Amino acid sequence: MAKLRVGLIGGGGPGNFFGGVHKRAISLDASRELVAGALRSDPRAAVKAGADYGIKGYPSYLALLEACQSGKESLDYVTIVTPNFAHYGPAKAFLEAGIPVLCEKPMTMTVEEAQDLARIVKRKKVPFVLAHTYTGHPMLMMAKELVRRGDLGEVRKVEAWYNQGWLATALEKTGQQQASWRTDPKKTGLANCGGDIGTHAFMAATWVSGLAVKKVSARLNTFVKGRVLDDDFNVIGELANGGTALITATQIAIGYRNDNGVRIFGTKGSLEWHQERAEDLLVRRGEVDEHYFIGAGLSYIPDTVKPYLRVPAGHHEDFFEALANLHQSLEWAIRRKRGEKAPAPFAHPGVEEGLAGMRFVAAAVASSKRKGLWTKV
Amino acid sequence: MAKLRVGLIGGGGPGNFFGGVHKRAISLDASRELVAGALRSDPRAAVKAGADYGIKGYPSYLALLEACQSGKESLDYVTIVTPNFAHYGPAKAFLEAGIPVLCEKPMTMTVEEAQDLARIVKRKKVPFVLAHTYTGHPMLMMAKELVRRGDLGEVRKVEAWYNQGWLATALEKTGQQQASWRTDPKKTGLANCGGDIGTHAFMAATWVSGLAVKKVSARLNTFVKGRVLDDDFNVIGELANGGTALITATQIAIGYRNDNGVRIFGTKGSLEWHQERAEDLLVRRGEVDEHYFIGAGLSYIPDTVKPYLRVPAGHHEDFFEALANLHQSLEWAIRRKRGEKAPAPFAHPGVEEGLAGMRFVAAAVASSKRKGLWTKV
Amino acid sequence: MAKLRVGLIGGGGPGNFFGGVHKRAISLDASRELVAGALRSDPRAAVKAGADYGIKGYPSYLALLEACQSGKESLDYVTIVTPNFAHYGPAKAFLEAGIPVLCEKPMTMTVEEAQDLARIVKRKKVPFVLAHTYTGHPMLMMAKELVRRGDLGEVRKVEAWYNQGWLATALEKTGQQQASWRTDPKKTGLANCGGDIGTHAFMAATWVSGLAVKKVSARLNTFVKGRVLDDDFNVIGELANGGTALITATQIAIGYRNDNGVRIFGTKGSLEWHQERAEDLLVRRGEVDEHYFIGAGLSYIPDTVKPYLRVPAGHHEDFFEALANLHQSLEWAIRRKRGEKAPAPFAHPGVEEGLAGMRFVAAAVASSKRKGLWTKV
Amino acid sequence: MAKLRVGLIGGGGPGNFFGGVHKRAISLDASRELVAGALRSDPRAAVKAGADYGIKGYPSYLALLEACQSGKESLDYVTIVTPNFAHYGPAKAFLEAGIPVLCEKPMTMTVEEAQDLARIVKRKKVPFVLAHTYTGHPMLMMAKELVRRGDLGEVRKVEAWYNQGWLATALEKTGQQQASWRTDPKKTGLANCGGDIGTHAFMAATWVSGLAVKKVSARLNTFVKGRVLDDDFNVIGELANGGTALITATQIAIGYRNDNGVRIFGTKGSLEWHQERAEDLLVRRGEVDEHYFIGAGLSYIPDTVKPYLRVPAGHHEDFFEALANLHQSLEWAIRRKRGEKAPAPFAHPGVEEGLAGMRFVAAAVASSKRKGLWTKV
Repeated sequence: MAKLRVGLIGGGGPGNFFGGVHKRAISLDASRELVAGALRSDPRAAVKAGADYGIKGYPSYLALLEACQSGKESLDYVTIVTPNFAHYGPAKAFLEAGIPVLCEKPMTMTVEEAQDLARIVKRKKVPFVLAHTYTGHPMLMMAKELVRRGDLGEVRKVEAWYNQGWLATALEKTGQQQASWRTDPKKTGLANCGGDIGTHAFMAATWVSGLAVKKVSARLNTFVKGRVLDDDFNVIGELANGGTALITATQIAIGYRNDNGVRIFGTKGSLEWHQERAEDLLVRRGEVDEHYFIGAGLSYIPDTVKPYLRVPAGHHEDFFEALANLHQSLEWAIRRKRGEKAPAPFAHPGVEEGLAGMRFVAAAVASSKRKGLWTKV
Repeated sequence: MAKLRVGLIGGGGPGNFFGGVHKRAISLDASRELVAGALRSDPRAAVKAGADYGIKGYPSYLALLEACQSGKESLDYVTIVTPNFAHYGPAKAFLEAGIPVLCEKPMTMTVEEAQDLARIVKRKKVPFVLAHTYTGHPMLMMAKELVRRGDLGEVRKVEAWYNQGWLATALEKTGQQQASWRTDPKKTGLANCGGDIGTHAFMAATWVSGLAVKKVSARLNTFVKGRVLDDDFNVIGELANGGTALITATQIAIGYRNDNGVRIFGTKGSLEWHQERAEDLLVRRGEVDEHYFIGAGLSYIPDTVKPYLRVPAGHHEDFFEALANLHQSLEWAIRRKRGEKAPAPFAHPGVEEGLAGMRFVAAAVASSKRKGLWTKV
Repeated sequence: MAKLRVGLIGGGGPGNFFGGVHKRAISLDASRELVAGALRSDPRAAVKAGADYGIKGYPSYLALLEACQSGKESLDYVTIVTPNFAHYGPAKAFLEAGIPVLCEKPMTMTVEEAQDLARIVKRKKVPFVLAHTYTGHPMLMMAKELVRRGDLGEVRKVEAWYNQGWLATALEKTGQQQASWRTDPKKTGLANCGGDIGTHAFMAATWVSGLAVKKVSARLNTFVKGRVLDDDFNVIGELANGGTALITATQIAIGYRNDNGVRIFGTKGSLEWHQERAEDLLVRRGEVDEHYFIGAGLSYIPDTVKPYLRVPAGHHEDFFEALANLHQSLEWAIRRKRGEKAPAPFAHPGVEEGLAGMRFVAAAVASSKRKGLWTKV
Repeated sequence: MAKLRVGLIGGGGPGNFFGGVHKRAISLDASRELVAGALRSDPRAAVKAGADYGIKGYPSYLALLEACQSGKESLDYVTIVTPNFAHYGPAKAFLEAGIPVLCEKPMTMTVEEAQDLARIVKRKKVPFVLAHTYTGHPMLMMAKELVRRGDLGEVRKVEAWYNQGWLATALEKTGQQQASWRTDPKKTGLANCGGDIGTHAFMAATWVSGLAVKKVSARLNTFVKGRVLDDDFNVIGELANGGTALITATQIAIGYRNDNGVRIFGTKGSLEWHQERAEDLLVRRGEVDEHYFIGAGLSYIPDTVKPYLRVPAGHHEDFFEALANLHQSLEWAIRRKRGEKAPAPFAHPGVEEGLAGMRFVAAAVASSKRKGLWTKV
């Protein structure tokens, strides 16, 4: 079976981190290869960055698209890792051209853009996956599956969080690249903390529970002086079934790295997952604390999750493998659409989840401005 | 130095739990002894329960008080462990008589009662300690001390929680005593979950951080059908310094036992404490996770906490010892007032903290009824 | 039911620790009271120490025994907390007089003394409990019960350890009392590390597994210069059923406090217990890690352990409570012997286990001297 | 800089696991590519397996070598993942030809073979890395570095272990491939448990501490009936500096997956590492437990380890990344030898460490046969 040919949009700037991460994730499984890209906004730099990556560099995503359309280049899908404000353009362009997309999160800058992408995906029926990396972790996938098949009963309450400390001081004033664009409204959108990591907490809450957040009451804070956007994000939400969601994120928790996690309380049991110990899923159905660890070959791993495992129990698959699983899902969707044999892709977040995330952040920002007024998502 | 003579109000009914707990806490340190009590509401049963306890039983707290006043009985302080609705009466009576009180939490049924007790304590200058057991744990005391002396800088955000699962079903319908009175508005007051365990989360948030909650936006839920009061309690609060507090409690988290805890994020560092692993305090001032474990003789234990430790490092002091520490504080306050030699008592919760807790719960109930409207505490 | 009257031998010196610990353990349950003692070796100091304890002080254990025999004093049992070399004398004397004994560990200085005590206990049928505190912890009791009832199948291998760091330097040269007598062969016997904490590891291995150690190959080290006895103790043993035991202890593990623990591997499952997280018993019967936490009212607590629990799940019973459980077992044995109603005492270590411990240490010392030659216990 | 071209020996059989693992590890960093292989012992199957892998398949390693020597194929190094008995042949052949080798562990079947490889490597000065995957984990590398630079002082004692449960029953009788060859003396050598995972424990003990084991006293067990080789492996060793090593491994610990780990006790501090929570290194220099977590950009990561990190703090690098790090070290050694620019390779295990491991296992087997007689390594 031929390897899928993958293009990369963005990710080539100096100090860039996510380009390289996707590159590793693409090549991890040997059924995909990164072959071309438009890696920077400056055309010359973009071409050079391609060479540095060992792939064909194009001056812009439009040039890359044109090459695809003219038959000079052949791509099975593209991966978009530009800053938030530059997701929409290439995503729209490639989707319109019928080329599948794996897009970094948050999906767009505005709800309108997100709606537009959702319409295109629906209309064109192009496979689309949103790169919420943690949703690619097999134990979070297992968590979703336990809820779906009813192991916890009806969900009553969901808590999801994301604690970081790296923006506890005005790091952006030191010129640090990641801090600069994330705290800049022009590049990051309505919200900093809410968009960057609040969406991870949102995804953990809604994607795992299978329940939408219908309305929210929010309190956003900006603790570090001189900052325009939020660096702390607190939301109480109402779930589609009337349950309650607590969704929080902060960037001022000194010493906390990527403390993302979720707890779900149902009528039959509870579960708890922590990203920094992602290999361990805690389930409580009664008195005993049951710990389920990741591992190929374990009988408790749901059948829908099994195809995503690469190493036997006692060794961990973590960040790169989780991201590779999202590429895997997109790959399998593409192959099955073509009639090739591939496992059924897991229900990873797509364009609807991305749109929901954008709406959620927008509603939270609006609610916070109106002192926590309950606001429809 | 003579042992302090202690009286007990309540705690003698069948299936009662807290009477026995206080009994052990009183006798743990050999400087106090339980000598008399009015242990049940029924006069005959009360006298008999005294005999069962091996102490002098009185038919009512008024009879016990009268005995004290007439010189027939001599008590250094009383401990009140009646259900919530019956705290106020005896607390008021003994305080008015100048007899110190250690009172179970929540302090009263209503804010007005709490205000009245606060007035009496202030006027009469009688030692009063509120039995928030967890505040007696040396590592939570250390947490408070770290914040007080500025180790974490200015506090920005506080998260405190209490997750339980025992009321995930309608246990009260089975006749279970603890469930019955706690879910009964007549015996428990305005709130069930909020009053019973939300106050613990509140105390962890405010007592440890040293910051009052000024206003709240709340969402209380009643998940179990047929229940009148809340079994799930979620509050976003504004701290006195403008920071944010997240205070949550639930009784529907299946498999969770007494998962109380607190996180504090300051401008210089963070701390985290979990009641179910109370012996371990996690402090983060930079990149390294520093774990401080309980233990007499450890140099990092603050001087204000040292007098409360009984066992060397590597063994735990937990529930009984924490409660005994509250008795210890009351004892030392009494002894020092009399001019006896005793260590300085730690700033354990007293009548003002009890009043703040009542106001907090009342404000949360009011806010929840008005869809989360920000409400002054 | 009348309280048992308890006498204390030793424990009254300045800086003494274990006297006070037993005092608390005796009074924790309100069915026992400490009433008399011979607390120090110097007669005058002994009498004065009694007064300081608030009990009747006798000049010597012989004087106390005489008072009992002449009817001037009445004791239901005595607790011996003298240094190792001074266990045998009072233990023998009181046992011969038919007075039950709770004795600190290691039981004696020599195997011969231990044999003598075993003979007396057998002959006189006097209740005797050995104060291996950790065996009083309900979760280690549960571990023993799981093995006994066959949950793990046939035991193949046992690992038990005790890591401490307090003697990593020559603390005894600073005059520290605990370090001085423990490293002094005249007061501590054949072995320091082996006797003091190796016996704890031995007890965890043999008492929990229910299997004796038949022969040993040992390597004892003395890492700190100037020390005569071992400060590091490593034994491979053969179990009664042919299985293997690894029993190690060290006092030079800097930063380790009381890291005692045990792992048992059987044909049907495994268990693991760590003293510093004593409330949690890990059982593995297949793929899932099952964590059992301490707590009254939990259905998985074996019936034989239930009477020893005092607090509901989510709060811990630890050091004082574990020691109190050993007093509890002795108390119940005494009461049942008298025909009083009391729960069946758990099979806590007694004189046979104490003798086995002495033999084990002696065999390990002998084996180590002969370069690890396999030596009968 | 051109990608290194890598060849693979073995790893192509049905159900094979390690071939795929190395394939991922080779491609993870984009500076290496797997291009050719002799993947199975049967010539036809070997060629076909190459096609399945998407690489050039050769009928045998000799054919592959010949192609290299005749200039038809060009390889920068080969990776050997055949069963134990088939390491020596290809390793010797390629090394003699001056082609660098990354070889799976244990290095050979016999000490003699290992000595031979060591001689060749020394004579030819060909880069050689032994695939002890865990030594590629950055936090175990940090552990080694802490010891090397003296943070723990002089090492007194080392404990290393590896607990597994997969061979607790006679799995080999079910035809399971991994179990079959590992328990077969013809394919696995002198020891099963000792060779397969005892060598991991040995490497953790000696490579991290930097101290050789000079002599050993061992007790090997075969718990499962019908098995010829050991399934349980226990060694007390004497370190080069006179300290003590405890090195144990077992395959009968039901429910244990890959519980490999090491503790080092020095005169200034201690460290502890567990493979199943590999991202966390615990260091104790005094009273505080210091936990160091993996992560690029953290200032405490030693400079020698930094080039090996790929993801920021809070995400884990684990199995594939650790193995990739060994390839990384070999790659950098090769590049530097050629005068290309590359970071200094970390001191990962090479041929001397492999020889030491073989000697250790052989000495342990010999000692065990002679009832634990202390035997030179």
